Amino acid sequence: MSDARDRDGTDPAHNQATPIDASDGDSTSTAGNPTARLGGRLPHVVIVGGGFAGLAAAKRLKRAPVRVTLVDRRNHHLFQPLLYQVATAALSPAQIAAPIRAVLSRQKNAEVVLAEARRVNAARRVLETDQGDIAYDYLVLATGATHSYFGHDDWSASARGLKTIDDALEIRRRFLLAFEAAENEANDARRRALMTFVIIGAGPTGVETAGAIAEIARTVIRRDFRHIDTSRARVVLVEAMDRVLPAGFPRELSDRALADLRAMGVEVRLNTRVTHVAPGTTDDPPHVLLSASGDAAPERVDAHNIVWAAGVRASPLGASLGVPTDNAGRVVVAPDLSIPGHAEVFVTGDLARCAWSAGPGSAGMVPGVCPAAVQMGDHAARNVARLVAGRACEPFKYVDKGSLATIGRAKAVASVSGMKFGGLLAWLLWAGVHVFYLISFRNRVVVMLDWALAYLFFKRGSRLITGEREK
Amino acid sequence: MSDARDRDGTDPAHNQATPIDASDGDSTSTAGNPTARLGGRLPHVVIVGGGFAGLAAAKRLKRAPVRVTLVDRRNHHLFQPLLYQVATAALSPAQIAAPIRAVLSRQKNAEVVLAEARRVNAARRVLETDQGDIAYDYLVLATGATHSYFGHDDWSASARGLKTIDDALEIRRRFLLAFEAAENEANDARRRALMTFVIIGAGPTGVETAGAIAEIARTVIRRDFRHIDTSRARVVLVEAMDRVLPAGFPRELSDRALADLRAMGVEVRLNTRVTHVAPGTTDDPPHVLLSASGDAAPERVDAHNIVWAAGVRASPLGASLGVPTDNAGRVVVAPDLSIPGHAEVFVTGDLARCAWSAGPGSAGMVPGVCPAAVQMGDHAARNVARLVAGRACEPFKYVDKGSLATIGRAKAVASVSGMKFGGLLAWLLWAGVHVFYLISFRNRVVVMLDWALAYLFFKRGSRLITGEREK
Repeated sequence: MSDARDRDGTDPAHNQATPIDASDGDSTSTAGNPTARLGGRLPHVVIVGGGFAGLAAAKRLKRAPVRVTLVDRRNHHLFQPLLYQVATAALSPAQIAAPIRAVLSRQKNAEVVLAEARRVNAARRVLETDQGDIAYDYLVLATGATHSYFGHDDWSASARGLKTIDDALEIRRRFLLAFEAAENEANDARRRALMTFVIIGAGPTGVETAGAIAEIARTVIRRDFRHIDTSRARVVLVEAMDRVLPAGFPRELSDRALADLRAMGVEVRLNTRVTHVAPGTTDDPPHVLLSASGDAAPERVDAHNIVWAAGVRASPLGASLGVPTDNAGRVVVAPDLSIPGHAEVFVTGDLARCAWSAGPGSAGMVPGVCPAAVQMGDHAARNVARLVAGRACEPFKYVDKGSLATIGRAKAVASVSGMKFGGLLAWLLWAGVHVFYLISFRNRVVVMLDWALAYLFFKRGSRLITGEREK
Repeated sequence: MSDARDRDGTDPAHNQATPIDASDGDSTSTAGNPTARLGGRLPHVVIVGGGFAGLAAAKRLKRAPVRVTLVDRRNHHLFQPLLYQVATAALSPAQIAAPIRAVLSRQKNAEVVLAEARRVNAARRVLETDQGDIAYDYLVLATGATHSYFGHDDWSASARGLKTIDDALEIRRRFLLAFEAAENEANDARRRALMTFVIIGAGPTGVETAGAIAEIARTVIRRDFRHIDTSRARVVLVEAMDRVLPAGFPRELSDRALADLRAMGVEVRLNTRVTHVAPGTTDDPPHVLLSASGDAAPERVDAHNIVWAAGVRASPLGASLGVPTDNAGRVVVAPDLSIPGHAEVFVTGDLARCAWSAGPGSAGMVPGVCPAAVQMGDHAARNVARLVAGRACEPFKYVDKGSLATIGRAKAVASVSGMKFGGLLAWLLWAGVHVFYLISFRNRVVVMLDWALAYLFFKRGSRLITGEREK
């Protein structure tokens, strides 16, 4: 086995890059470092992405006779289902994220590299990154998905998506500053635009964000202002399909969530598409154009706060594999999660398109949810271990753990093992499941305490505006 | 009494600005808003700055027959003594900050305006801000101080100061990224530069930051890396005076802090000045030049992490008053904290230069510490209330509550009521005092819990790198 650094002299395409390789014990060894001591002898498994799938894969290989390198461009694992709580000022970033190094610090056969993966050279078995090339024997791709503006990338500046901590902090900053500006604004129309929030897409993220904004405006911050009534903030949730939570939830839970949202004052627009997002000018406030099916003219809604929770597109790394992808950029994987022609390359999580049947008469794909990502990452790692042991891969079987979405304080909907329910019971289940899966013990305790205090005192603790103010 | 808006038509200098005034109940009134209902009848007290002095002044006026407007360019009060804990990844921003609106939400005679004060027009009794003019009857300035690079403002890019949450997050980002880069760096000299931290100035902030960095490098993150030994990070603390904690601490506590720092591996350079800070180029790492008194040639220290904890300069707002300031820009105040010629203008906190004698034979100034700021803000507000009631102002008398600085886990030095002590007892006192003074109840409980967990598990919970990565 050789690594990228060994080949550098013979590959002119890569001799500009600074090569890095975890296994090169000769030049960068540290006393007591087992991966360095074992350098070059154990198979090298490179995992790209420190999300749910990637971390599950790394952890599953803890006792396998391999060296593991986890590559991520960020230093932290993010508990994405709670990201909207950071965006709406309920939680701090540190409460829903953990440094990947800390998560894997005791796993002696694993190391972490902070680098941005650029492409996979599957023929040479090399991952190309902005920090140099990394050679692999087995590759697990778990780089997930990002927003897709359906060809309207110019909308991204006005309609921020919610995928990273920086996204969440920016959405929080804008939404807090909008109330501040409204407090100082004498013009009625401008004040209304500042206090209007449009959330595009009514999947779990959109539903949870809309519910949280409606709740904070109507309760928590209401007594902080003197000139505006924050409870009159307008929250518009736009969905192209005919119901909220259109994917992965039974229709009766969609109906219940819709009723809950409307009771909280959220304007839900079903069967409605966004046809334009305008950033606004000095004279013209930012706005969206909404086109309901059957309507003649689109409706204009002036809004300074627009959140994009609609389409996602798989990470571009998948395309560099040179194998078939679907129209969202997901890599079509074999039943064992490997790709055609490369039994040593596995694709997992939101980056993979994996067939799944929920039962007789149903045919579809494994959904893009956390439990599926964990299961796929774990399964890919098991298959790697099987190959290392000279055994055959096994096909992936997704186990549906049910669906959960929260709408507000003590309001949620759940579909678990055929049971469908809402209200406080679903909310408690939602809270319990989420806190349980938070990766570090510290986070579990602190988040629980935060929530308990927030519930008792109905406060939002993280209402800080950081970053530069727009001029 | 008239306000800025009333005058707009007759004052061509201000008719471009969007005028805002809290008291104008006619055009922006909100039902149930007492300041609006009382608009124009009660004296208007404008407080600039939501730090310790400004908040103390606002709270003191809770029951006074006045309208209070607190103006700050940030939306949060910051518990500045713990800012170094955010910079060193022990605490999250939300744990040491509270929204000013939330702090004052129940004070019915107070409102908060998010605006940047530009200058005071004392003759017209108007505060000019980026959101328009605000007329006052009484003004309390409490805008504090910022870094001073002693004429070398070009050093600010490399040697970041530590005054705001954004400063703290940037210092944290750089220090975490430096370890990440060191892990990937094969060249010995470059790796050493990445793992070298220079802290300039050995006041409480410098001492606490140096101690915290040495501690985290030697303990918490050590097992996270595979190719570097973080405990070999070099921490250099530079001080121009002949001791650490040169101001406000007795010499024997300086000696004890010095011994503690050295025991933790911090290189303390006393009697040493920084003569140059170089940002570094592709070929040349960032570095500082240190000149010890008596040395012939300056010493060069290559370091990717440089923290500026040396000089401060008072906020430029003070200069716009047109009264004498000292060489750090502080406004020389009368014994009652007012300024010459304007009995209705008070200056407090770090912006004020106020004479104080610690005892017979001693003459100096009220120090730039939190308890002094709280006392000055409170006193200025009492004097405002006296003037409103037709009584005379009283002179300010500073009560020295002692000095405290922490050096690391269970290490601190304290000087209280003539007693001087160090070690665990001082650390517990330090922890108790700081937690007690954290403004909101939620913060108190969560910070205590965080600290307890950090103490038990020796973890750093907030080790997240956010913001854009440098390319």
